[in-house]
Order: sequence, then structure tokens, then C-alpha cells
Amino acid sequence: MHIGLVGLGKMGGNMRTRMRNAGLTVIGYDRDPELSDVGSLAEMVEQLPSPKVVWVMVPHGDPTHSTITELKELLSEGDVVVDGGNSRWTDDEIHAAQLAEKNIGYVDCGVSGGVWGLENGYALMAGGDAADVAKVQPAFDALRPDAENGFVHAGRVGAGHFSKMVHNGIEYAMMQAYAEGYELLEAVDMVDNVTEVLNSWRVGTVVRSWLLDLLVKALEDDPGLSKVRGYAEDSGEGRWTVEAAIANSVPAPTIAASLFARFVSRQDESAAMQAVAAMRQQFGGHAVRAAEESPDVPNP
Amino acid sequence: MHIGLVGLGKMGGNMRTRMRNAGLTVIGYDRDPELSDVGSLAEMVEQLPSPKVVWVMVPHGDPTHSTITELKELLSEGDVVVDGGNSRWTDDEIHAAQLAEKNIGYVDCGVSGGVWGLENGYALMAGGDAADVAKVQPAFDALRPDAENGFVHAGRVGAGHFSKMVHNGIEYAMMQAYAEGYELLEAVDMVDNVTEVLNSWRVGTVVRSWLLDLLVKALEDDPGLSKVRGYAEDSGEGRWTVEAAIANSVPAPTIAASLFARFVSRQDESAAMQAVAAMRQQFGGHAVRAAEESPDVPNP
Amino acid sequence: MHIGLVGLGKMGGNMRTRMRNAGLTVIGYDRDPELSDVGSLAEMVEQLPSPKVVWVMVPHGDPTHSTITELKELLSEGDVVVDGGNSRWTDDEIHAAQLAEKNIGYVDCGVSGGVWGLENGYALMAGGDAADVAKVQPAFDALRPDAENGFVHAGRVGAGHFSKMVHNGIEYAMMQAYAEGYELLEAVDMVDNVTEVLNSWRVGTVVRSWLLDLLVKALEDDPGLSKVRGYAEDSGEGRWTVEAAIANSVPAPTIAASLFARFVSRQDESAAMQAVAAMRQQFGGHAVRAAEESPDVPNP
Amino acid sequence: MHIGLVGLGKMGGNMRTRMRNAGLTVIGYDRDPELSDVGSLAEMVEQLPSPKVVWVMVPHGDPTHSTITELKELLSEGDVVVDGGNSRWTDDEIHAAQLAEKNIGYVDCGVSGGVWGLENGYALMAGGDAADVAKVQPAFDALRPDAENGFVHAGRVGAGHFSKMVHNGIEYAMMQAYAEGYELLEAVDMVDNVTEVLNSWRVGTVVRSWLLDLLVKALEDDPGLSKVRGYAEDSGEGRWTVEAAIANSVPAPTIAASLFARFVSRQDESAAMQAVAAMRQQFGGHAVRAAEESPDVPNP
Repeated sequence: MHIGLVGLGKMGGNMRTRMRNAGLTVIGYDRDPELSDVGSLAEMVEQLPSPKVVWVMVPHGDPTHSTITELKELLSEGDVVVDGGNSRWTDDEIHAAQLAEKNIGYVDCGVSGGVWGLENGYALMAGGDAADVAKVQPAFDALRPDAENGFVHAGRVGAGHFSKMVHNGIEYAMMQAYAEGYELLEAVDMVDNVTEVLNSWRVGTVVRSWLLDLLVKALEDDPGLSKVRGYAEDSGEGRWTVEAAIANSVPAPTIAASLFARFVSRQDESAAMQAVAAMRQQFGGHAVRAAEESPDVPNP
Repeated sequence: MHIGLVGLGKMGGNMRTRMRNAGLTVIGYDRDPELSDVGSLAEMVEQLPSPKVVWVMVPHGDPTHSTITELKELLSEGDVVVDGGNSRWTDDEIHAAQLAEKNIGYVDCGVSGGVWGLENGYALMAGGDAADVAKVQPAFDALRPDAENGFVHAGRVGAGHFSKMVHNGIEYAMMQAYAEGYELLEAVDMVDNVTEVLNSWRVGTVVRSWLLDLLVKALEDDPGLSKVRGYAEDSGEGRWTVEAAIANSVPAPTIAASLFARFVSRQDESAAMQAVAAMRQQFGGHAVRAAEESPDVPNP
Repeated sequence: MHIGLVGLGKMGGNMRTRMRNAGLTVIGYDRDPELSDVGSLAEMVEQLPSPKVVWVMVPHGDPTHSTITELKELLSEGDVVVDGGNSRWTDDEIHAAQLAEKNIGYVDCGVSGGVWGLENGYALMAGGDAADVAKVQPAFDALRPDAENGFVHAGRVGAGHFSKMVHNGIEYAMMQAYAEGYELLEAVDMVDNVTEVLNSWRVGTVVRSWLLDLLVKALEDDPGLSKVRGYAEDSGEGRWTVEAAIANSVPAPTIAASLFARFVSRQDESAAMQAVAAMRQQFGGHAVRAAEESPDVPNP
Repeated sequence: MHIGLVGLGKMGGNMRTRMRNAGLTVIGYDRDPELSDVGSLAEMVEQLPSPKVVWVMVPHGDPTHSTITELKELLSEGDVVVDGGNSRWTDDEIHAAQLAEKNIGYVDCGVSGGVWGLENGYALMAGGDAADVAKVQPAFDALRPDAENGFVHAGRVGAGHFSKMVHNGIEYAMMQAYAEGYELLEAVDMVDNVTEVLNSWRVGTVVRSWLLDLLVKALEDDPGLSKVRGYAEDSGEGRWTVEAAIANSVPAPTIAASLFARFVSRQDESAAMQAVAAMRQQFGGHAVRAAEESPDVPNP
């Protein structure tokens, strides 16, 4: 199979390697000429036999929009574009409709695996028509961990990114779960070696998981996590998951709590807690703390 | 009516004044001779006619325990002790049982009102036997805002403090509700004057309340709350409310969230969020932030 | 002042009355001829002197969109449209831009007050240019509770509905706060009369509020709330508040928890909790409950 | 090594088998003579060489209290009792002090593994003095999955049960995380086969875990979970984890949310949501739902 691959950064570069290792002919394009196999997107498309399959691996939003707009010009009926980036599922319907005007197929694909993907394979969640998915299947088979695992045709256009988004939402809450447990173990005198406790959970317990392995590794590399600030970015998919939950009237208390914890982690000052402190000051008299230390003032 | 009052700080002192204004004879005792009407607890008890009523207004825990232990020695059958401090309801059963050994009655009373109580009266929630409550009624009537409002005989021993505790738990979540709304209004460009918006809610809206009045006052006194740190103490009753909710299998998501927000507000660093950041670093490669800025790496 | 009013249901009808009582000339239009003062929207507009002010009081979404589209045809430069319904703030920018094409002004106005508004006045939060707001001011003054209270020019277009939306988000969490406290009081034996306890909080406490008054009234009308199902609708603004919080990276744990509690309240079965039960069954052996009753099986 | 084992139910019975398979001499006692190796606890103790090691595997609370009280009578200086049940960590200090009066050692041990433990081994978290732990070590080594994994001496008395409790608290939130994601995937039309999506996550993704494996298995056994009610028990350790978090001022929003979700799952009617519905009815007029369907009533 021949495939075009747009975007050859850390992720796209590794995916090119893994597909080549599996025997595919990958023609990669990147704005960075050092990374690119060809001089232009047009050149890449030209080198592909029909039906042409182009995998887009650029950031969601404008970079993906403009790449797809360009590809629409370059491709023809029966070709297929795969968006393997982390687009919002709502963008997929727009992109699919745009390409459908020229009868170009569209498949969205959520990709999981990060820096381990090159070696271990990527988990892939695809959305789109079965006929379009079929045209991309050799690439999916090259990228997935093995023939049995790590690929699903989740549903129609959008279902791939939606599934990957939910995956990431779950990821937020799982990380927060371990994080709360870690903080509680650290908070008590009783437990001497929190890293060893977490390590003891890695085999034979209900909470064993790859994330737990990572947390133990992080703690072994940096005991007490002294080199890490408690500052956590969020990347969009957690927000989208809560938005999708709200749109579908699905309660998502742990995922929302995880997202809010990240928001808080990035604040230098919390306007909300200033307001709480100010209200307490108002009803407790001017010197709140003094009032609390006073021997006989119950809380109003 | 004659009443003994133990603890004459801000709260007890004001209550003495309010009861005296209502015509009661109050004999106050405090460890601080400057505040005390008498030289000792024994002297205070001596001056009371039988059945003697003694109102205890000292901090919960050891100060209340030891005061009640001393009073048990000094009082006799038919007398009544009122604990008006902010004891945990579980202490009430212990104190009641202790005093019952000498057939001394016990009433627990949650008191709300803070620094405004002297002028506006206190809301009072009492627990205990009707006969004991009746002996204290003139004091309740002197302290409450008026003859129609602000007093309830909530149930048996413990019910007064339990009711007051739930009141405070609700207070936590209400404050947090306003605080979240305030932060959101502050966060957007669109809204020019957040204080005026909040002020416009004080009449005619569903969210009007005394707490809202206080928040507006705080914002008028200190625009932008620039003088207040987002650091909020918690006083025990919020914790107890969540504990009681758990013990009774009652979901309490907003009260628990308010309590946790206060915990977070007091942390210099969050071990939990360090763990989240460390896990993200593990699966995203060494330079997490760099990885995120990279154009083509979806979140794993 | 003359004003056109579109939508004469419960809310619009009462507002017409209140404005007329204040001496304004109100020409009301409703699709229902029984309610309408005129035969058509065009007739209503015709009867207004220039600059014409038209207050739209129809449901958000399509009804508001189409009303504004029609008004754009009928009005001219210098006229002003007020959207007093509960539109999402993001709609306001669209409507304002649409009308600006003909130099027609636009003001969005969040209105609070419900069925009490006719008598007590409405709290009003307006967004838009000062010049446009000024043209509507006599109507605002007629509707607000009194000259001092209940009106704010919150900011530019959208700020009115945004402020009202935040108001409603806070309302969700306040209601949930009282609700959790109520359930906890009901859950324990100790407290005999929950309604009286809540009633005692109405004067002199930190949690006194109009919502508390309403809850007590509901409990007095229907002791134990035996006639009410624990089923709570949500009306959009709670969802929008959480969405806005997420978009602005503002933690909103109590508002989100309140929203999710309403979602849960409407579910006949919870897919999430089925999943939890199924996972417990998997790791606990087939008969989970039997396993739990078994004397010697710790939880895995 | 010889070891006494009290409690031979599902868990204790399997542990006896695993220890015997490893070459230990296990003398088991159970109230049920069908299961017991000996006629009485005393007989069991008699057959053990000194220093005697007795592993208690009975339900926490009274059964554990009374077993330890009996063992205190039967054992002597230098012997060791292990509590391998799921006692609260606060009980451990009491039991240790009780046994220390006769210089009998005490080790608490959290045991994870459930029905798979017999085959795969148990994860073990122990608390106590090093000398006491050393006396039990052959039993720990027999029970753990292998020589490298699944055992930790977590700290002083109580640390074992505390660690296991935190493990279970994390477990609650992880299960809830998957459950929320599952419900969201089920809620949308876009995703055709939720089970296959979850299955695709089992290899190569960030959320892969044993719990995910179990969820997929449950869905494969019972598509759509039609045979499972959304009713989830909680076993004590989730509650204790939140209590411990509160006692240590550790925010635990996802663990608390998971616990509350279980409480809700078991309610036939929610008093809290009745209160919310009743308040909405009060401010929205008598017929809330009718009011909402009315075309022109914004939410107050």
C-alpha cells in the first residue's frame, strides 16, 4: 500500500517509521524540509497511486482545516483523507461534508500510544463509512499493536475522535484517582514509604494499570516528586468530554472534578476562594483568624 | 430568671448583654477576671437559685468537657446545663449521660448570629428533653430575634448541634456557589462591573440572600478583593457534615466540593497535582510542555 | 415612553401590566390574538414613535431568531431591539451583528423575578451600548423593583444574558446545598421536625435567603414533600454556566455537581452504575452480594 | 513454617490452599466444623510451635475484636497475631495495644486479590514492627504473587490497612471514571459498538488496566449490561478513605464523587431532589412543567 502522511513531528515521524517497517510505502510531507520526503503537498499527492489515501497528522483547529482544504483541491473522487490528529468530533462532520462535495472519502481516527507507539503500536479508533475505512485498513494494521488488538471501527464519521476523546476523559479521572490516593498516603505519618506501597499494587490488585506503572516510575526517578510542580495542563479533550456529557445529560462527576482540579492547579490566586474568605470575614467580624482562635465564638 | 453563663468572650459577652437587656439576671464566669462577674465557677453556681440553669459557651472539645465535668460536681438533681458552643453532636450524648448520673439535665443548643446577634438576636436550635428545654426557655426567648422566629426545639439530645452543623454545611456550599459565579463573572471581558451585577441581584432575584449582601459589601469595601487572600479556613462543622452524610449514606456533592476547595486553598503545593503532572510527563515524553507545543502530537 | 412588546405569555403579560401601571404606553403583540393588542408585528411597529423600542420576550433559539429577523425588516436606523428572553449570550453577538447591518441597536436583558415580578418588580441585567441602553431606560425603570435596586448595565452586548446565566448557575448550587442539608436532617432519627428546623433558620442565620423561605413554604404546604417526585428539570442556563466555566478555565465544582444531580434525578436506570456493579461482580466473583455477606472476604 | 489461620471462608480457604501449596503447615480454624481443621481456637493454638503466628481472616468489627480478645488469652509473649481482614486502620492501634499488654506482637495486613488470589497470588500491605513482620514473612512470601512483587511493609501498625483502604478508595474512582465514559459512549448515536471501543483500549492506550479488562469481559458476557441493575454497594473502605482525607485536609473530589454516586444508586427516591423540585415549583408557579413549556417564561 502507498499512503501519504502530512505532519512528521514526533508522532507522525514515528508512525511513518512503523508503517515503513510493516512494508508500506509512505510518502511524508512536512512544512519542515528537513523532515519532509517531498517538496510540497501537491508533490506528495502526485506520487500516490489511485485511490489515494492521505493521513493528516497535524494539530487540530486551523492547521487541520487548512490541510484538508488544500487536500480537497488536490484529490479526486474515490480518494480518502484520514484525520489522525486530535480534532473535536464536531469538526469531523464539517470536514467530511467538505470533502464529500468532490466525493472524496473521510475517516477520522483517534490515535493513542504516545512515545511508546513506535515500538508497541498505536491503539486506533476509526469513524467513517466502511468502504472508506477499508481503503485505509492496511495502514491501520501496520500501526496497531497486533492483528487482534488496538483497532476499532467505532461508527460513523466522528465516532473515532469521539471515542478517543472519551478515552482521554477517563484518563483524566483515573490520574486524579491515583493522585488523590497518593496525596493521602503522603499526608499521614503512619505510612513510611509511599512509593513502595504504590509499587506493591502493581501486581495482583484491582487498581493495577499502566498509569500506576508510570506513577511508580516517576516516583522512583524523582522521590517525593520534588522536581515537579503541581501544575497540570489540560489539552482540550477533557473539556470536550465534559461538554459532551452535558450535551447528552450524562453525569460526569469524576471527569469534571479532574478537569477542575487542573484549572485550580494553574491559578496563582483563586478569585472564588477570595470571595469565600471575604464572606467569612464579613460575618465573622473583621479579624477572622483572631475570631477563630478566640475561645468562645462558635461559627455563625 | 437567673442564669449562669460560662465563657464571656465576644460571643458570650454579647449574649450576656442581650439577656440582661431582656431582664434576666445573668451571672457570668470567665477565666479572665476582667470579664468575669464572679471569682470562680463555684461562686457562680452558688449565686443561682434552684433549679439552676448554666449556659456553657466555651470552645468545643477539652474546654467544654472539663467545664461540664466541673459543673457535674457543683450542680444537683433538677439543674440543667446548656452547651451553646459548637460541639460535635456526638459529644452531646456523652455529656448528657455524664450529667444524668446525678439527674442533672442537659440541653445542647446550636447558636447562629455572630457579631450581629447582640442587636438582631440569635437563631437557636435546641436538643434535649422537653422538661429541660422548658427550664431554659426564658433564656432562649431573650436571645432569639423575636417571639415568632429563630428558635426550634429540634429533637432529643444532640439534635440542636446536629441542626446547627447542617446549617453550617449548607453555608459552605452556598458560599462556594456565589464564589464560583463571582470568579466566572470576573473571568470574562464582557462584564464590566461585577460588583454592580451582584448588587443588582440583591432585590427581586432567586439568589438574593444575606450572604449575597455580605459579598457585595465586601466587594464595595475592597474592590476586586485585592486585600484578601484566597485562603479559607474551615472550622470543623463542614467536615462533620460530610462525615455525617457519609455515615447516613446521604450524597453531599456540593458540601464536599466546598470543603475540598477550602483544603486546596490552603495548600502551597498540591501533592496530588504533582502526581498528575508527573504521570503526564511519563506518558508524554520528557518535555511535556514542549511536547504539547509540538505541532503533531495528539494527547495519548 | 412607547414600547413594543413581543410575547405576552405569563411573563410578558405581567411585564406589560407592570409597565402600563408605571405609565408607559405598551403595544403588545402575541401570536395568540386573545392576548395581542394588534393584529401583526408590523402593526405593532407602525404604532411606535421613532426611535422605536421593541422588547422581545419569546423563547430562546428559533422563536427569538425569527422574531429578530422579522424586526430587522420592520425597523430602521436608530431603533432598538431588546431581547429579554433567556437566550445564550453567544446568540446576542449574532443578533446584534444582524441588526447592526441596518444600524438598529441591540440590548440583551436578563430578567429575574418569575411570577412575583408583577408585584415586586424584576431584577434586570442589561448588555449593550450605553446609547442603546439609554433608549430603553424608562422601561427598565418601570420593571425594576425600585429606583435604587435591581438594574445593572453589566457591560457590552451579551453581558446581560451572561450575568443572568451565572445567576442561574449559582441558583442551581444553592438549591442543591439546601437539598443536601434537608436530606441529611431527614436521614437521622435525632431530629424530630425538619421543617421547623429549617424555619428557625429564616431569621438571624447565615443561610437565610429567599430560597430557604420557599423551601420552608413548600414543606409547610406538603409535609415530607410526599407529593413531589425527586425529578428536576434543568433549563439550559446551568449547562451554559458550566460550559462557560470550562471555556474560561474556571473551576465550578458545586455548580457542575448540581447539574449532574439533576441529570441523575431524571434517569430510570444509570448506565454508569450498571458498569460499576458489573465490574464489582467481575472481581468479586459471581454472587457479589453473597460474597459481601460472607464472613471472611475482604474487598479486593 | 507453621501458621494458624482463623476464618476459612472463600478468602481464608483459598489462602490456606495457597500457603499449603508453598509448603507451609497451616492449621485452620473456622466456626463451621465442615471447614475447620481443628475443634477449637485453643486446639489450633496448641498445635503451633512457638513463636506462634496466627492469621485472623474474619469480618472487621466485632468478629475481629472477639477473635483477638480470645487469642490474647491463648497466646504468649513473642507470639504474633496478623489481622488480614479489612479492619479500619484505627482498630489496629487498639488491637496492638491490647496484645502488647502480654507482649504479643501485632501485624495488620491489607490483602488484595479476591477470587483470583489462589492462582495469581495476593498483594499484601503490612503494618507493624519489623521484628513482628519478620516472623510472618514466610506466610507473606507464600501468599504474594512472586518474590519480587505484591508485598510491602508499609509502616507502623495500621499502615497496612490504611494502604489497602487507600487502594480501595482509588478503585472506587477508577471504576466511576470508566463508568462515566461508558455511559457517555452509550448515550450517543455516533458510536455503534461500545464494547468494541472499550476492547480496543485494552492494548496500547493510557487507560489500559485490569479493571478495563473486567469491564470488557462483563460487556461481552452480558451485552448492554441488561442483566445488571445500576445498584452499587459500598463496603466501608470508600467511606473510610473520604473520612481519612477529611481528617488530613486532603482534597478527594473524585473518590468522594464515586462514593456519592453509589449512595444515589441505592436510593428509590432522593429527598434532596424532591427538595430541589419543590423549590423550583415554588418560584416557577404551581405547574412547573407547564411553565417551562410556556413560550415566554425565562427561568427566574
